[in-house]
Amino acid sequence: MRNLLTDVPGILVGNAHDAQAATGVTVAVFERSVVASVATLGGAPGDRAVTLLEPEMTRGMIDAVVLSGGSLYGLDAAGGVTAVLCRQGKGAQFGGLTLPVAVQAILFDLTNGGAKEWLTEPVDKRPPYWDLGRDATLAAAQDFALGTVGAGFGATTVTAKGGLGSASTGTRQGFTVGALAAVNAVGSALIGDGPHFWAAPYEQGAEFGGLGWPQKIPPEALAVRFKGQPAPATATTIAMVATDATLTKAECKRLAIMANDGLSKALRPVHAPNDGDTVFAVSTGLAGSGGEPPVLTELGTAAADCLARAVARGVYEATALPYKTAMPDWKTRFGGGRR
Amino acid sequence: MRNLLTDVPGILVGNAHDAQAATGVTVAVFERSVVASVATLGGAPGDRAVTLLEPEMTRGMIDAVVLSGGSLYGLDAAGGVTAVLCRQGKGAQFGGLTLPVAVQAILFDLTNGGAKEWLTEPVDKRPPYWDLGRDATLAAAQDFALGTVGAGFGATTVTAKGGLGSASTGTRQGFTVGALAAVNAVGSALIGDGPHFWAAPYEQGAEFGGLGWPQKIPPEALAVRFKGQPAPATATTIAMVATDATLTKAECKRLAIMANDGLSKALRPVHAPNDGDTVFAVSTGLAGSGGEPPVLTELGTAAADCLARAVARGVYEATALPYKTAMPDWKTRFGGGRR
Repeated sequence: MRNLLTDVPGILVGNAHDAQAATGVTVAVFERSVVASVATLGGAPGDRAVTLLEPEMTRGMIDAVVLSGGSLYGLDAAGGVTAVLCRQGKGAQFGGLTLPVAVQAILFDLTNGGAKEWLTEPVDKRPPYWDLGRDATLAAAQDFALGTVGAGFGATTVTAKGGLGSASTGTRQGFTVGALAAVNAVGSALIGDGPHFWAAPYEQGAEFGGLGWPQKIPPEALAVRFKGQPAPATATTIAMVATDATLTKAECKRLAIMANDGLSKALRPVHAPNDGDTVFAVSTGLAGSGGEPPVLTELGTAAADCLARAVARGVYEATALPYKTAMPDWKTRFGGGRR
Repeated sequence: MRNLLTDVPGILVGNAHDAQAATGVTVAVFERSVVASVATLGGAPGDRAVTLLEPEMTRGMIDAVVLSGGSLYGLDAAGGVTAVLCRQGKGAQFGGLTLPVAVQAILFDLTNGGAKEWLTEPVDKRPPYWDLGRDATLAAAQDFALGTVGAGFGATTVTAKGGLGSASTGTRQGFTVGALAAVNAVGSALIGDGPHFWAAPYEQGAEFGGLGWPQKIPPEALAVRFKGQPAPATATTIAMVATDATLTKAECKRLAIMANDGLSKALRPVHAPNDGDTVFAVSTGLAGSGGEPPVLTELGTAAADCLARAVARGVYEATALPYKTAMPDWKTRFGGGRR
């Protein structure tokens, strides 16, 4: 077990970033098309090809989940992903054509200090996301890095650098569940000003430092702190969960809704007006039926726990961007500086 | 009055197409950001940045509605649109950045005979849609062509060439309502094998031939005929309606739902599993409050009628693509051939 989304068989993950622009793309690709749905609980989402994921829609299978920076400008990324998948022959074959489906959500990292040339010289300079989507897909593998990589490259939270996180677990029925998150929350993954993570109760081993729960939570740690006060700011945590249990699209929708609870265990505040929090849920269906309500309840709980852990790991593994004003990273502040 | 969407003050429309690929893009741009929502009643939609249009989401204003061919490959178009709007300084100003919002829906025209090089040489040849989105935005004007143009360039219906249509009307409160549709329905805009349009009861003047209702509707005209029997096929009519009445986002959602009824008046079958029928609704808010239920009922009815007329005009104004196997156009079949 890698403690990564890719512990779910049939899933590969790739990252690509543009260091100059301080942004990037993460893509999860599937060996065979998977059943999927989505639950969007943040108030300011940006997405591509997601309506087809609703249970009343016809198309049942997708070939990639794309997470990216760039706010709405980042939505070109799925185009580059789709091109590579088409060349690989992935997706539905239809009238002699290859029609892969790449669904996407974005986060807002436009004000993180990177050089966003497509905003200062629009039209002449194109956003880098189509290329980043292509490159992330070409890089897809079972092993992938966490922290300041891919869609988490330019991500921040209100108190520490954000990043890309992942985690996995098993259920007692023998199913595998994995989660992947690009953590750019309007809120914080940490309790107050201390080093402890809200997700501590769900930590496995010392996957995000092993500090456990603080002895005491001071009242000021419950004060609501978030980006952009008094000026508005945008944020967003985008994520996916996956299982090898066989689920219908409606069951994937339920899984996506329950998995959003993982965000609420790991971030405070979350699902806010300026978050676009979006969670995709995917069933590879390689391990048999998981659709009975008690099994789905276990899968949903595992997915929520896993996603909470992935969020904490995204912050824990992050490295600060190289700007004077950049948000410091957890390890430098609390871990004695690992580098 | 031009009998076009652009009769609603503050809206411009632009078209661009790629004749070789037999596909194109239509964009409606707004002088100032507008309130908008969407109702997606087709079973196989493809879209970009639409979740933010739901009434519970924070972002209230958009700057462009993009309609395009290309199925999911076409979703790059909004990127080119957004780049031009950014250069023009359109949209929200946020932290010194220009953040226009372009929402998009696509239709499926991949099997219409055009040379889709990005499908035969993927990655090396990119889909043309980013460029077409840019060019359509640069072409935006009050006057624009109908028929085999823009998003309607490669469109078909089951019995006749499809195309881009538009229409407008006024309400007795003095509001203007307009509609725009790229008609690529799985079904037909025509009654049986004859020249009459299902939308005939709503026709103004002779805007789609003035033939009125047929004397008699033979039983075989009610037989359900649609593309892709027995093989599956995909289709989709994508549309927008707009009014200068001031509406909230929730009221725009209601307007979009009522406007979908215009599709059902003009097309049979419609909202089918392989249609991705999507209707955007926009309020420019330049003419005062239209949100009281009786007024909104009138606006919704006007929008539905207008959209039915726009659909018929899209088919009526279309010109067949220059392929042997291309779907014939209405005017050649029934109009004595205007050209």
